[in-house]
Amino acid sequence: LSDKLPDQGLTIFSHMTQLAQQTGAINLSQGFPDFAPPAALLEAAARHLRDGNNQYAPMAGIEPLRQQVALKIAQRYQRTLDHDTELTIVPGATEAIFCAIQTLVHPGDEVILLDPSYDSYAPSVQLAGGRCVHVPLQQPGFTIDWQRLTDAFTVRTRMLIINSPHNPSGALFTRDDLDQLATLLRGKNVWLLSDEVYEHLVYDGRQHASVLAHDELYQRALVISSFGKTYHVTGWKTGYVAAPPTLTAALRKVHQYVSFCGVTPIQHALAEFMASHPQHLEELPGFYQARRDFFCRLLGSSKFHFTPTPGTYFQLADYSAIRADLDDVAMVEWLAHEAGVAAIPISVFYRDPPPGLRLVRFCFAKQESTLQQAAERLCAL
Amino acid sequence: LSDKLPDQGLTIFSHMTQLAQQTGAINLSQGFPDFAPPAALLEAAARHLRDGNNQYAPMAGIEPLRQQVALKIAQRYQRTLDHDTELTIVPGATEAIFCAIQTLVHPGDEVILLDPSYDSYAPSVQLAGGRCVHVPLQQPGFTIDWQRLTDAFTVRTRMLIINSPHNPSGALFTRDDLDQLATLLRGKNVWLLSDEVYEHLVYDGRQHASVLAHDELYQRALVISSFGKTYHVTGWKTGYVAAPPTLTAALRKVHQYVSFCGVTPIQHALAEFMASHPQHLEELPGFYQARRDFFCRLLGSSKFHFTPTPGTYFQLADYSAIRADLDDVAMVEWLAHEAGVAAIPISVFYRDPPPGLRLVRFCFAKQESTLQQAAERLCAL
Ligand SMILES: CSCCC(=O)C(=O)O
Ligand SMILES: CSCCC(=O)C(=O)O
Repeated sequence: LSDKLPDQGLTIFSHMTQLAQQTGAINLSQGFPDFAPPAALLEAAARHLRDGNNQYAPMAGIEPLRQQVALKIAQRYQRTLDHDTELTIVPGATEAIFCAIQTLVHPGDEVILLDPSYDSYAPSVQLAGGRCVHVPLQQPGFTIDWQRLTDAFTVRTRMLIINSPHNPSGALFTRDDLDQLATLLRGKNVWLLSDEVYEHLVYDGRQHASVLAHDELYQRALVISSFGKTYHVTGWKTGYVAAPPTLTAALRKVHQYVSFCGVTPIQHALAEFMASHPQHLEELPGFYQARRDFFCRLLGSSKFHFTPTPGTYFQLADYSAIRADLDDVAMVEWLAHEAGVAAIPISVFYRDPPPGLRLVRFCFAKQESTLQQAAERLCAL
Repeated sequence: LSDKLPDQGLTIFSHMTQLAQQTGAINLSQGFPDFAPPAALLEAAARHLRDGNNQYAPMAGIEPLRQQVALKIAQRYQRTLDHDTELTIVPGATEAIFCAIQTLVHPGDEVILLDPSYDSYAPSVQLAGGRCVHVPLQQPGFTIDWQRLTDAFTVRTRMLIINSPHNPSGALFTRDDLDQLATLLRGKNVWLLSDEVYEHLVYDGRQHASVLAHDELYQRALVISSFGKTYHVTGWKTGYVAAPPTLTAALRKVHQYVSFCGVTPIQHALAEFMASHPQHLEELPGFYQARRDFFCRLLGSSKFHFTPTPGTYFQLADYSAIRADLDDVAMVEWLAHEAGVAAIPISVFYRDPPPGLRLVRFCFAKQESTLQQAAERLCAL
């Protein structure tokens, strides 16, 4: 048996969730809410299950859901896209990322990743026979180092993967970043994979700069989002890809043999809820900002250092005033065992972790009682 | 844009279902039931949605479902497997097929397919950089041509894909076939992918010869099944892979980056229903055999020629007494438009279709009223 992914083990998310279960630690590691999704959404799903269609969905997803997504994109990003030729519903953003890469990356192609980068990008590139070129984001603020990014392009570069709001840092690209990116990519035969699964989780009145709102970039882009993050149902494994017709057609060819389609009653429930509860999207930033503020206020009494995250439901925190002797992988083990709180280390998202990195990531998509208890434990350190 | 799958268009299943919708034809093409799944299963799913966990499932699937599958396999195939290291729950058999191939097939490897072969095998091999070697099953009866199969192996052969009960023909491998296969593979570095999604749909008192019941073959095998086919919920996109620990570990590494996991409340509902309704599996062959017999009895008054299918929910029928001038692809178009019945042509499952093939496939996983109406239309030809 010749291993296709010799450098990969169990993902850090599975590992830390298992460790939390084994140690009884409060699980602020893997990104998922511990509160109930909207009752109306669950009722809709239960109804569609009991009374509706439980057989194969169309390969590209049910039309009402593609229509709702198109409507949302028109309202938020002023892009009118054709839900028949530019939108594909897929069983989760992970499958979307995998299929997008599998569609466009040929053996020997280079793909540029901005580290820290989400853990599925590099193995997906590897499985397509591509080579990852890692460009670190610069500190402070996890911003693009334009010189290093410019220098990373070669004649073999076929794709650039960006992710804003950024996991694990919470950093946001600006409209100006997208303009610079457009200039950089102009004339190059390079596709843009834009992972925007946290598109609706931006705080303090900031705006998400979506590739969907950028005409020039969109022409070469696949934009990925997730209903799981937006509607508090990560276990529903439903996401979408928006891309121009030629790219969508190529993506669907691969998607139809990778998974064929997603779960039918869940697609109907999401379509119904999006149509009947448009205010959900308006309220979402405030909802999560309140959780962030609650958690940050409590954590302010601890020895962790941090600035409140501008986006995502993740809060980075520097622990060097607590255990500067431990690297972040050792620190999250120590935190789970000694503090009873599970977190995610940051170095695992780098090919070459910056020396002396002393950051861990906490997920604050949790009930106040969970955050309170976790913060108490963290403040006791 | 350099197409990874230049020879592939929309799958025949999507194409024919769309044609049925456009023409108003009765859809006996794509394989899915048109009746409701068991009420208790739907109730369980609705309950788990409303009151249960809607966040990420474990990457390998929830433990209660893996336990139920292990129990079923012990009872039916006398194999005791470890649900922690030998079973993986995946979002549908298509994803299972894709991941199994992606895990084991390296660029340049050869994979042997027995034509007619399910439509996702070849593109999945292609995406892994492998080369398909097509060995036709022989007529009558779609049995293995042992000499041709033996001759197809080279030093580059890395995998053989088998499928019993066989889609589209309904043919079954015998225990003797598996023994011969074991002899043929002995000493070869070749993996066996056994697609057994119709394992429970075998008729007239026949037994399904599972690779799970064959010690020697199982050691090199990945065995795939589907809850969708077994519980009348193709739109739930849930399946599983049984494989020895080393193969399972390699498969999970790929699966965790292709889709990560399947839908959580659906997994809980299936586990609960399997535990509370073991008789479902006992009743299933009789349930579908009655539908097969009903459809075949009516179709007996038509000009189609056929022998009742031994397995799956598909019935092949020879139409040469009706339109011998049309090849099967033209025939299904004609049938949809002229008879108002959608079917699947068989030649699309071959690399080199046998000349003069005059077979179409009807799905009888339908209510009696649907089958009655379809048969009336087919008898009028
Ligand atoms: C698929 S499990 C990972 C969840 C997640 O996106 C994260 O925790 O970063
Ligand atoms: C994934 S759609 C195909 C359904 C099926 O297995 C068939 O009709 O053969």
